[in-house]
Amino acid sequence: MERAGAAVIFSSRRTSADPTGYQQTATRMLELVQQQPGYLGMDSVRDADGFGITVSWWTSIEAAGLWKQQAEHLQAQQLGRDVWYEHYELRVCTVVREEFFPARQS
Amino acid sequence: MERAGAAVIFSSRRTSADPTGYQQTATRMLELVQQQPGYLGMDSVRDADGFGITVSWWTSIEAAGLWKQQAEHLQAQQLGRDVWYEHYELRVCTVVREEFFPARQS
Repeated sequence: MERAGAAVIFSSRRTSADPTGYQQTATRMLELVQQQPGYLGMDSVRDADGFGITVSWWTSIEAAGLWKQQAEHLQAQQLGRDVWYEHYELRVCTVVREEFFPARQS
Repeated sequence: MERAGAAVIFSSRRTSADPTGYQQTATRMLELVQQQPGYLGMDSVRDADGFGITVSWWTSIEAAGLWKQQAEHLQAQQLGRDVWYEHYELRVCTVVREEFFPARQS
């Protein structure tokens, strides 16, 4: 992955509602985000209790901000608040330092 | 939690080595970090395959940097590379925007 300039950290707790619709939308969002300019990748983990952290990596804060405004993604965000998430926290960050183990060229 | 100025994002894949020693060290590091100036909190998830994301929240980049240099923590980092982690990526970030659902005063 190219050096990330920005990260969006999304910590959330799922409701038990509509897992089918959630999964379909998650798959569609992954398809879309991969076409989004400046998108570099994503790390995502959710535990058995429904708590998860997703970090998406971007070339810049501006690129991350444009994804937030993408039309289909805006609809998904609204569904997230209405149906799928009991609670979430989102933080947009500038990456100032990276470290890899095993060491890699970056 | 007070507004975070900085985040340290640690994505890792565990080896299968020494889960007992790992757990003891993780518990001790949590005790220590809670005494560290500028520490605000932590979110952590690991899945059944050993992939995990831990995000620690700090008042500032400087505060996060001092924890990295803490003596017992330095020993734990070395053990992590020698024994517990197959692979990790760590990124130090400045938080530029926060969003909460349900909305909260920040």
